[in-house]
Amino acid sequence: MKAAYYKEKGKFELGESQIKKPAKGEVRLEVAYCGVCGTDIHIYHGVMDQRVARPQVVGHEASAVVAEVGEGVSNVKVGDNVAVRPLQFGEPHPFDKGYAHVGKNLKFIGIDAPGAFQQSWTVPAYCLHQLPADLSLKHGAFIEPLSVACHDVKIGRVKEGERCLVIGGGPIGTLIAYVLKTKKAEVIISEVNEKRVNMLRELGFTVVNPIQENLKERISELTNEAMIDCAFEVSGSAAGVDAMTEVVNVRGRIVMVAIHGGEKKKVDLFKFFWSEIELLGARLYEEEDYEEAIQIASSAQIPFDKLITQVDSLDNIQSIFETIDNNPAGMKYLVDCQV
Amino acid sequence: MKAAYYKEKGKFELGESQIKKPAKGEVRLEVAYCGVCGTDIHIYHGVMDQRVARPQVVGHEASAVVAEVGEGVSNVKVGDNVAVRPLQFGEPHPFDKGYAHVGKNLKFIGIDAPGAFQQSWTVPAYCLHQLPADLSLKHGAFIEPLSVACHDVKIGRVKEGERCLVIGGGPIGTLIAYVLKTKKAEVIISEVNEKRVNMLRELGFTVVNPIQENLKERISELTNEAMIDCAFEVSGSAAGVDAMTEVVNVRGRIVMVAIHGGEKKKVDLFKFFWSEIELLGARLYEEEDYEEAIQIASSAQIPFDKLITQVDSLDNIQSIFETIDNNPAGMKYLVDCQV
Repeated sequence: MKAAYYKEKGKFELGESQIKKPAKGEVRLEVAYCGVCGTDIHIYHGVMDQRVARPQVVGHEASAVVAEVGEGVSNVKVGDNVAVRPLQFGEPHPFDKGYAHVGKNLKFIGIDAPGAFQQSWTVPAYCLHQLPADLSLKHGAFIEPLSVACHDVKIGRVKEGERCLVIGGGPIGTLIAYVLKTKKAEVIISEVNEKRVNMLRELGFTVVNPIQENLKERISELTNEAMIDCAFEVSGSAAGVDAMTEVVNVRGRIVMVAIHGGEKKKVDLFKFFWSEIELLGARLYEEEDYEEAIQIASSAQIPFDKLITQVDSLDNIQSIFETIDNNPAGMKYLVDCQV
Repeated sequence: MKAAYYKEKGKFELGESQIKKPAKGEVRLEVAYCGVCGTDIHIYHGVMDQRVARPQVVGHEASAVVAEVGEGVSNVKVGDNVAVRPLQFGEPHPFDKGYAHVGKNLKFIGIDAPGAFQQSWTVPAYCLHQLPADLSLKHGAFIEPLSVACHDVKIGRVKEGERCLVIGGGPIGTLIAYVLKTKKAEVIISEVNEKRVNMLRELGFTVVNPIQENLKERISELTNEAMIDCAFEVSGSAAGVDAMTEVVNVRGRIVMVAIHGGEKKKVDLFKFFWSEIELLGARLYEEEDYEEAIQIASSAQIPFDKLITQVDSLDNIQSIFETIDNNPAGMKYLVDCQV
């Protein structure tokens, strides 16, 4: 069985999938589809080499079929279609306060342990969520990023009728926008890439390009001066950080989704005081977010096929990553691990 | 009757208090004591001249006795001792979402309208809170800053047994620490001024001077690595902003109490994502915060007399402000408006 190994900056190599018999509490999967995440791109760019052992199979947005179950596994059986929550929980630490998904000793499967860009994959059984019969394995690969979006919206405590802004209309931002629609919130997306702007408008979203229009003024018009109850900073840019404090109203919430690594960014702390606004960090997902994501995906509220830019085989993984690098307007790329 | 007028940068002038007969819904007070707030110092330094009409009576941390009531006033009667919540509510705006205390059209009495450094003061009746018989007028002047502290702790959602850090042990930071004690939280104060450090230790607080010790390491020791559940940034300094994200644990809250005006400050946004921490802006107070402050003050849980650095008469207001400027270690200065 095949596997794609991240070798070094800019380079994948095909090899054998190490078929690992499931130990007690483990399950061996045959991976169906695995989406490419921004984190995979970071790994491919070599910026996470300090964390990633090499050669390493990466990838974590997977749907799969159960091939073999270890002793004591009762939540899935051979033949089940599943989505994988790629979190390997470590020893609890008082610092974590029980939030294992962001705990000190968490291992992320696909970064800190072998991931899903391979045909055979053995993981803890507690990572698995059954996919309902009406959800295809292709769409099942969206459950991981959709769970991120569900988690972000939950952290934002968004209620029906609230006005929301998503800053950055890439794959995660778009899924957040869809989850917001399921909450009956009003959604505006801010996006600078014109191809994405057009695509999002075709999907029915209200989109503002802050390069072409004054975002704050446009939002004031769109909301009759009420401004934004909950903003999601997904852009990772300094401009996004400037915008997030400018658009929210009194007691407005800002959910920090983007990974602002590197140098610290300048933030308008005065606005936090003046209008009692909130900044809420959000990372990964909890079990309930997966359940919600599966429910949303299963009820056909998201046109996944329109969000898929390309599907290609494991054999072509190198070319997939090169294509992504050359196409910043792309949405979701899926690797078909079955062929 | 006397009044102190802020004239221009660095200068107060004594004059007559304009005795304004209370209109419908208003009350005329005879001011007892009025504390000096950091904001009054800013006004005295001339940095708020764009906002403050001159000459203007400033001051807003007042206790007073009701001298005359206007038509329709039923919440107080002549002779009552009161604390004043110096907020004049304006027209509601959708942006405010009902939070009038930080609303777009709020006027702050003592900045945007005449304040309490005078003997006769007419204010809306809804600003008044009765002081119980066991609370002196001198201690009543603490109700305004203590309400700030109650509001800050409420915004921080502090629960019994939680570990809290107050960054900046000035008057507001110290009152926050006392309110935290009423919640049965564990309190650490970070303070750089050695005189204040000593004073706070004499009051029984655990204090770390981050110039002399590594704050993060010391807190790790003090909390057995659990770190801080809720931090209060009261220092207004870049060092405080650096510290606030370093000390909190998973889902830790940071309450932004300080007024970070001027240039935007650099913030570790990565930490917000990584540990799902929260930044919560807090400004002024709501009615319930005054009620809580009066209850705490009345139950003698705070040794106010130890927090009073000096009491002096309205006649000496110029010298009081000059003294404060020369004594950064001072705590609360009260103006006795009766003499």
